[in-house]
Amino acid sequence: MMRSNGRTSDQLRPMNLTINTNKYAEGSVLIEVGDTKVICTATVEERVPPFMKGQGKGWVTAEYSMLPRATHTRNQREANRGKLTGRTMEIQRLIGRALRSVVNLQALGERTITLDCDVIQADGGTRTTSITGSFVALALAVNKIAQQHKLQVFPITDFIAAVSVGVVGEQPVLDLNYDEDSKAKVDMNLVMTGGGKYVELQGTGEEAPFDRRELNAMLELGEQGILEMIERQKEVLGPIALKIGARGLGEA
Amino acid sequence: MMRSNGRTSDQLRPMNLTINTNKYAEGSVLIEVGDTKVICTATVEERVPPFMKGQGKGWVTAEYSMLPRATHTRNQREANRGKLTGRTMEIQRLIGRALRSVVNLQALGERTITLDCDVIQADGGTRTTSITGSFVALALAVNKIAQQHKLQVFPITDFIAAVSVGVVGEQPVLDLNYDEDSKAKVDMNLVMTGGGKYVELQGTGEEAPFDRRELNAMLELGEQGILEMIERQKEVLGPIALKIGARGLGEA
Amino acid sequence: MMRSNGRTSDQLRPMNLTINTNKYAEGSVLIEVGDTKVICTATVEERVPPFMKGQGKGWVTAEYSMLPRATHTRNQREANRGKLTGRTMEIQRLIGRALRSVVNLQALGERTITLDCDVIQADGGTRTTSITGSFVALALAVNKIAQQHKLQVFPITDFIAAVSVGVVGEQPVLDLNYDEDSKAKVDMNLVMTGGGKYVELQGTGEEAPFDRRELNAMLELGEQGILEMIERQKEVLGPIALKIGARGLGEA
Amino acid sequence: MMRSNGRTSDQLRPMNLTINTNKYAEGSVLIEVGDTKVICTATVEERVPPFMKGQGKGWVTAEYSMLPRATHTRNQREANRGKLTGRTMEIQRLIGRALRSVVNLQALGERTITLDCDVIQADGGTRTTSITGSFVALALAVNKIAQQHKLQVFPITDFIAAVSVGVVGEQPVLDLNYDEDSKAKVDMNLVMTGGGKYVELQGTGEEAPFDRRELNAMLELGEQGILEMIERQKEVLGPIALKIGARGLGEA
Amino acid sequence: MMRSNGRTSDQLRPMNLTINTNKYAEGSVLIEVGDTKVICTATVEERVPPFMKGQGKGWVTAEYSMLPRATHTRNQREANRGKLTGRTMEIQRLIGRALRSVVNLQALGERTITLDCDVIQADGGTRTTSITGSFVALALAVNKIAQQHKLQVFPITDFIAAVSVGVVGEQPVLDLNYDEDSKAKVDMNLVMTGGGKYVELQGTGEEAPFDRRELNAMLELGEQGILEMIERQKEVLGPIALKIGARGLGEA
Amino acid sequence: MMRSNGRTSDQLRPMNLTINTNKYAEGSVLIEVGDTKVICTATVEERVPPFMKGQGKGWVTAEYSMLPRATHTRNQREANRGKLTGRTMEIQRLIGRALRSVVNLQALGERTITLDCDVIQADGGTRTTSITGSFVALALAVNKIAQQHKLQVFPITDFIAAVSVGVVGEQPVLDLNYDEDSKAKVDMNLVMTGGGKYVELQGTGEEAPFDRRELNAMLELGEQGILEMIERQKEVLGPIALKIGARGLGEA
Repeated sequence: MMRSNGRTSDQLRPMNLTINTNKYAEGSVLIEVGDTKVICTATVEERVPPFMKGQGKGWVTAEYSMLPRATHTRNQREANRGKLTGRTMEIQRLIGRALRSVVNLQALGERTITLDCDVIQADGGTRTTSITGSFVALALAVNKIAQQHKLQVFPITDFIAAVSVGVVGEQPVLDLNYDEDSKAKVDMNLVMTGGGKYVELQGTGEEAPFDRRELNAMLELGEQGILEMIERQKEVLGPIALKIGARGLGEA
Repeated sequence: MMRSNGRTSDQLRPMNLTINTNKYAEGSVLIEVGDTKVICTATVEERVPPFMKGQGKGWVTAEYSMLPRATHTRNQREANRGKLTGRTMEIQRLIGRALRSVVNLQALGERTITLDCDVIQADGGTRTTSITGSFVALALAVNKIAQQHKLQVFPITDFIAAVSVGVVGEQPVLDLNYDEDSKAKVDMNLVMTGGGKYVELQGTGEEAPFDRRELNAMLELGEQGILEMIERQKEVLGPIALKIGARGLGEA
Repeated sequence: MMRSNGRTSDQLRPMNLTINTNKYAEGSVLIEVGDTKVICTATVEERVPPFMKGQGKGWVTAEYSMLPRATHTRNQREANRGKLTGRTMEIQRLIGRALRSVVNLQALGERTITLDCDVIQADGGTRTTSITGSFVALALAVNKIAQQHKLQVFPITDFIAAVSVGVVGEQPVLDLNYDEDSKAKVDMNLVMTGGGKYVELQGTGEEAPFDRRELNAMLELGEQGILEMIERQKEVLGPIALKIGARGLGEA
Repeated sequence: MMRSNGRTSDQLRPMNLTINTNKYAEGSVLIEVGDTKVICTATVEERVPPFMKGQGKGWVTAEYSMLPRATHTRNQREANRGKLTGRTMEIQRLIGRALRSVVNLQALGERTITLDCDVIQADGGTRTTSITGSFVALALAVNKIAQQHKLQVFPITDFIAAVSVGVVGEQPVLDLNYDEDSKAKVDMNLVMTGGGKYVELQGTGEEAPFDRRELNAMLELGEQGILEMIERQKEVLGPIALKIGARGLGEA
Repeated sequence: MMRSNGRTSDQLRPMNLTINTNKYAEGSVLIEVGDTKVICTATVEERVPPFMKGQGKGWVTAEYSMLPRATHTRNQREANRGKLTGRTMEIQRLIGRALRSVVNLQALGERTITLDCDVIQADGGTRTTSITGSFVALALAVNKIAQQHKLQVFPITDFIAAVSVGVVGEQPVLDLNYDEDSKAKVDMNLVMTGGGKYVELQGTGEEAPFDRRELNAMLELGEQGILEMIERQKEVLGPIALKIGARGLGEA
Repeated sequence: MMRSNGRTSDQLRPMNLTINTNKYAEGSVLIEVGDTKVICTATVEERVPPFMKGQGKGWVTAEYSMLPRATHTRNQREANRGKLTGRTMEIQRLIGRALRSVVNLQALGERTITLDCDVIQADGGTRTTSITGSFVALALAVNKIAQQHKLQVFPITDFIAAVSVGVVGEQPVLDLNYDEDSKAKVDMNLVMTGGGKYVELQGTGEEAPFDRRELNAMLELGEQGILEMIERQKEVLGPIALKIGARGLGEA
């Protein structure tokens, strides 16, 4: 089956990663997946939140936001509403959990890395794109810490990336754009490590429930898409990519 | 393997449904799953939210809250914080989506049903217990509407219930209590219809990612647990249970 | 005169106190006064608010809330409004003041007891019912502290309970339910100790002002009702009741 | 007994009412009771709040605030805290109820009068002073409406004023200043009509409960003080005073 | 040209400064400029905000507010809106900057002076009037500190006052009242020291842009008006005026 | 004098305007002035705010925000603080006023144009850069409206741009970067039309007041810089530039 945008059902959109786009941040990347564009910056601070104090461990957290006109019609700024929407909170909690799953917080030491994911333009998959992009920003920032503080162990234990899958019509498809997403009867976000294990899996069939067979088809598509994305992360990270997981294996 | 609380790995906690506990609400139930206790009430209002107006369709939504001392230590009220936590928002969005998936909004007509899930005591699984309980409150309220307005089609198309599954140690287990939940390396919430299809599936392996084999084991446990729960819903709903899905099948 | 609900003008509604309803709280009670039902829990924390620090004294405070469907029509949650209503603030300040008036804060030591009064169902008199019920939860919690820390002096100096009185038609009546309350021209809440002294007295004649004679009639009814309620508190507290005020007398 | 400030126990502080202090407001007064100074303005708007619409009746409401340095030490502005304190809400609800009790809302017609009570300097009794002063501002504003719209019935049915009484040491005293208030064991606010009937009566014995005898002594002091205050209102209102209650009596 | 209110284009409105109007504040003044009336109080606290700690320097800050009925129609209180308007924030930031420009923060020592400017009645120029008035309150408070702590250097280095100028019709005018302000095509606020230097200069030509010639005419008018105002500050401050800048000159 | 960054005192930083960077917005531009980068989008909505309804006129407004890591250290998001800072409000009010001064709101018709200025990277002058950039986005959006609705009059009457000037050391300089800005004793923002008239002029000498001579020097630098910037706007707008002010002149 050919999709409206000319892709096959198992084909990712064109993906572009531009690193070091911000002169102040410890790590930064502009990630473009089709027409979805997200600026991810990583900020390192030499302190941890109150609930983590004195444990000798670090923390990784994320914030997510959309520019008001990232979408077809303009959205009110959350700063004007005076509070975050439930959707934003869900997404930033997801990004944080995903990234923490591949960070050795002990090895990171008592510091916090905050990933800011700001969506400049949205065409579906902003939350998964934010995870894939912010992993690269995280790796750049962690590399700076590792060099500056001569860490013995590189604190990132594996790669991580994310993609959306769904069922459109009766067809399971990979990496939905906004148009496909709004017609999908099932929508699922997958987050997976370089080792091919699930970190998060969130499927929802509000329009129509789905069965085991559909689930399995989506899982196949997602796994293949994520591993492709991780190849792109490796390319852009170059020598840093070699440090990821190198020590982590020996330790666990 | 025997669990700390004497259950086998595929055994639900004792579950109790007491209906019509509230003299004002159109539907109400006290659901107890082990030591987790939730009051679910359904309120019917003859109007829909602004974004639904004029479509001839109804709406189903949910709110979730915990009493401050539902837990081991007291939590600050969200009314005092001045806003809902991200966790609360995530949960109430989940409950709403789950219930809407089995409601024929067209058949419901231009009315809103709000499910309030107030956790009186929490011992793990409050979100899944809220879904299972509020389905019963919903069915009671819809039945009142159907009788009062002589609806041609009963607007509930299927049963729905939810349960948590996880991996504790290396063992996949069903229906985790708080103690098990805090030790689990993987935690997954499943929402499933009486027809055995998935409505929501949310798994997270923040502590350790999980593979396809573990996923499948959890899915098996969850399916069996949910179908057991739906039997209990049928018992307590009595003759109303017979109306659910009866027409829905004919229509779709 | 016989009231609509079959009571005489000086008759309380049936009152039920069930203790230890919550497995985590240091003290808990479900109080039912007619169809008004309130869950009261007492939480003990080994610290005091900033303005009390270093004085060697404890603190007692209260919070009050209604479940959204405790009433005929559903109320918006205060957590969604983002702030407490004036009514809620008034009530929780009243409960706190009332309870503190019978606690020897010095004898309590530097700890805080928070009473949470959550109204499950409302049929008039929720603020007075909250006071009467939370006194019992407070006594249970204080008893635990006294045993655990071997306090020399039992820190509760007297019993306390509360009731509403009013003028309906031209008739002063005791313990108004919602129906009577909404027709009353005068509405008064009385809080009184076991020793028969006033702690709070709040009367309002927005609909019609009242004179000295009506005031006195209401005070008589209230005194008798409160002393009856205190008898019920004594029954349910059993041996703990004997400790209340025992030392307090000797000290003052 | 002579009080620290040279007053006898039944003596009011010097009271001064200056009317028409604001060139825009429909009614305005600066009330000084000892060192307590409050600016009261009455604003008339030709609309009612949503819950009153279409009933052909008016509404009277009040707001209360203190300048930050009205007190010994500076208080944070409520606008900066982002919300009103419970104390402020209690007070403004009290002022509104008190004034409404002497207004014939039917005769007022579908308009809202808002009384703003801004405390310039506080030395005890700010809430009772606000009631006494804002009654005058209200009367001035109502008089303007009555003239402009040629109302058949003057919509104010009686005078109203308020005072605090308390027990200091063992002595019941009238009109406590801040110093006395902070030492009082019982504190009571009385609101009374020109006809000598109670509209509000709020007594609190947080420090020590009080008995019937003390209550009666305070009620005597309060009644006499309020009637004195009402004389001062009559003087300053001049011919307008004659209209108050004139028609109101004939109607009821 | 004669203005509607009988003033010439370079004539200030009648200005009145009444000092020590508040019995608690360290400095206080009621400033009246035409029908614009502002209460300015200065509060001294022996601490500095967190960002200033440990620098051995003091801080001067300001807050600004209007009573709801200071204006033709009633404004909602910012405390009820739950936040300050942009206008209020702009004004209080301006007042703070202006006053700090003439305070030697080093000489002041680690203390904070907060100027509260509460507008009782508004007829144009409330922000400039607040600056002119609060300088006097500041000087009174600083004088108390200087005496009490025997400061070696008087921490105020110069006088400061402010005025509005504008172009009404084609005519540059000084000290606009509300009526003129609402018709002005250009509106400019000037803040100037006793030494004739600019501290702030804010001109806006939203209705119509202005050229260099108009700018210069306004600057002339403003300079002359401000120097007149500073003469009035000197009169009311009496001997304190002599201390201002006396040492400041020797130091810089 | 040569500046640290190699510029002469009257030299602008390199400026780059990239148009149509956003696929959804009616007008969009990425403006880069040195290392300061701002995304400006213009959104057109076919309605006006409540206070403008029924006047047959349009409205132009602006919002301003910084990404958290636009600066050296990360700033908390205003959405998390729950409110806008005073600085943000000041800036967005300024941008809105500036743009409205060159729009014929009558000719625009009853529609609102919202300019969103999101600072991606900040190195001084973000508010002036936002004005210069958002004028271009505005012109693009207005051009679309004019074509689509066949407007008789092009609703933009003149060009507008803005720049900062200041005194660093004793030297007046043009277009300060962050480093210069933090050392400047005087800081002034100028907004000027293509016709060379002032729309806004905001100078502040918190560190040290400034005299007439310094003011004039800064005005000269600013005028020249702004006119240079307007040349760049004309280049990038191409044929649209010719429509600006063409009819506006004939009308006024």
